[in-house]
Amino acid sequence: MGEYVPGLEGVVAAETEISEVDGQGGRLIYRGGYLIQDLEDASFEEVAYLLWNGKLPDAKELAQLKSQLVAKRTLNAAARAALKGIPKDADPMDALRTGLSAQGARPGVPKPSLEDAIAYTAVTPTIIAAFYRQSQGQDWVDPDPKLGHAANFQHMMTGEPPDTERARWLETYLVLLADHGLNASTFAARVIASTGTDLCSALVGAIAALKGPAHGGAATAAHRMVEKVGGADKAEKFVTDTLNAHGRLMGFGHRVYRTYDPRARILRDLAKIANPEYYPVAFKVEEVALRELHERHPERPNATNVDYWSAAVLDGAGFPVDFFTCVFAASRVVGWSAHVLEYMAKDGRILRPASKWTGPQPQERKARVS
Amino acid sequence: MGEYVPGLEGVVAAETEISEVDGQGGRLIYRGGYLIQDLEDASFEEVAYLLWNGKLPDAKELAQLKSQLVAKRTLNAAARAALKGIPKDADPMDALRTGLSAQGARPGVPKPSLEDAIAYTAVTPTIIAAFYRQSQGQDWVDPDPKLGHAANFQHMMTGEPPDTERARWLETYLVLLADHGLNASTFAARVIASTGTDLCSALVGAIAALKGPAHGGAATAAHRMVEKVGGADKAEKFVTDTLNAHGRLMGFGHRVYRTYDPRARILRDLAKIANPEYYPVAFKVEEVALRELHERHPERPNATNVDYWSAAVLDGAGFPVDFFTCVFAASRVVGWSAHVLEYMAKDGRILRPASKWTGPQPQERKARVS
Repeated sequence: MGEYVPGLEGVVAAETEISEVDGQGGRLIYRGGYLIQDLEDASFEEVAYLLWNGKLPDAKELAQLKSQLVAKRTLNAAARAALKGIPKDADPMDALRTGLSAQGARPGVPKPSLEDAIAYTAVTPTIIAAFYRQSQGQDWVDPDPKLGHAANFQHMMTGEPPDTERARWLETYLVLLADHGLNASTFAARVIASTGTDLCSALVGAIAALKGPAHGGAATAAHRMVEKVGGADKAEKFVTDTLNAHGRLMGFGHRVYRTYDPRARILRDLAKIANPEYYPVAFKVEEVALRELHERHPERPNATNVDYWSAAVLDGAGFPVDFFTCVFAASRVVGWSAHVLEYMAKDGRILRPASKWTGPQPQERKARVS
Repeated sequence: MGEYVPGLEGVVAAETEISEVDGQGGRLIYRGGYLIQDLEDASFEEVAYLLWNGKLPDAKELAQLKSQLVAKRTLNAAARAALKGIPKDADPMDALRTGLSAQGARPGVPKPSLEDAIAYTAVTPTIIAAFYRQSQGQDWVDPDPKLGHAANFQHMMTGEPPDTERARWLETYLVLLADHGLNASTFAARVIASTGTDLCSALVGAIAALKGPAHGGAATAAHRMVEKVGGADKAEKFVTDTLNAHGRLMGFGHRVYRTYDPRARILRDLAKIANPEYYPVAFKVEEVALRELHERHPERPNATNVDYWSAAVLDGAGFPVDFFTCVFAASRVVGWSAHVLEYMAKDGRILRPASKWTGPQPQERKARVS
């Protein structure tokens, strides 16, 4: 048995062709060998097709996927009942975790399938929007079959006809975040799926992991931090005060990237247009933060992570701060399901590592129990 | 970066003092250094206390834990609504996954706590029994505060006063299965918790993993197989026919054990009394299976696993075959929560392994998208 590897850092736990994070080169490669910046203008549906099938769809394949997604947007009775019961003030990720779990409650243990991947991806925005509406004391808005995935998501949130520009910002976000190597939630999905369980179970576990502030929850935390700064002119003082008090700056550092995250770069450029009020403050905070972090810890790579600029774009696209992690899930559900399908098709061995015992050795004794 | 390790076999992904599986020696050690056979007569509450706190409780500590568990057995409004909506024919693990997720829907991201571990452990049997009753078209049975954890579980399932002997069989099962090193569901719970998410999220993900037929679902599969044999006199033919047709025998083999699982040994002895009809068939099938597997694959350790004899005892204790995995969860929830509390107290680093890219390298091209 080897040595304990904290955080499993550097341990290769999967062979995958879904996506590759080149941390040294600052590149994110999607299935088929596409650099993320080359997919910036793709639709969510195209990228979902790519991650699931290994190639971009032709016009007919795209039309088919779109109609499959449209057909599966509706909540079933179990999900409706579960969502109605969730308290208004619950964390939106708890509502999504519960709603998707209810939507997938079925007999037996269905084998993960592309059909299910499409269905769970289709219904995720409906669950999120339903909970958002009810948390605001508003009625649910039915999905609109004439709208694409991103525009329909916004429509179900607001009840308004979609704004083309805002829908495009959301779509870019959904494309950029759809997969990212063996991040913790994707890894959780693979571990769960490796037991032979159904796709819904793997996705629910991934949602559970994404909720964590060290993972998907980071965008919300970054937004709250930038809001707290209160203006670009206060960035200098805020950042130095925080670091002097050994506080943590949200939105910086990543396990894999050693340079600027290519997604953060695209989202930063987008934020300039999408969120002109927030952008200058976030820009200044970033500038000071990178400078100060580098001065204090020159040995550490402290590049801005994707969550930092996700916050700006999602805010600009009209999503409430509490719902950022849910929108992340609405994108990553594609990657999670692609990884599960890949693992179950290729290897599928149960992911069961070893542990090192740090407790006492057994003694000759009979436990004294009641 | 190292080589890909399929199934993470032999990779040390945790340091733990919750439990240790000594596969070579056929020993299972619980926290504090107790061999599993020395805890055979302990109550579920005592073992839960041990796994959470590192020592067996004194009389006062035990009484306190019991009353804490009793106080937290009730479903909240969200769990009630979610369960009522689950279709009767859904897999019981889907109902448990959804019900526990709803029970834990709260504001924000609460830090995992012992208090929460107690609460989720307390309510797990209530969720299972409620879904069982409604799947039978029967009313839910309220928990009885005068009963211990095991007896109350059976009472909520049947609506009858508890049978002392059956309650003791269930209790032994719950004690034996409460933890087992870094099995896939416990590992899933640690991966999820490592993102800083709440305890409910980690437990829901663990339930999702336990559902898999290569993990908790194995007892149900073993029971169905033994039932199919149809009698001890048919065991010889059934086993050889199955193996000749390259079919799989359920309940044999384990990633870690190289010898007889100590829990299987205790459950086998118990099954003789608890399930006198099933026992002789299961005994004969086991005998033939071990002989045939050894002859055909002398290089493989093919010892009976715990699921094989769990099936006999849970059936004897009155649980329907479809609910075996849920009862497993009602036991393992203690280990899952103990592992999460340990990880978040000690290391807590995000579990984010690496992956090996098997796809094509990016080309100079702009994706042609719509």
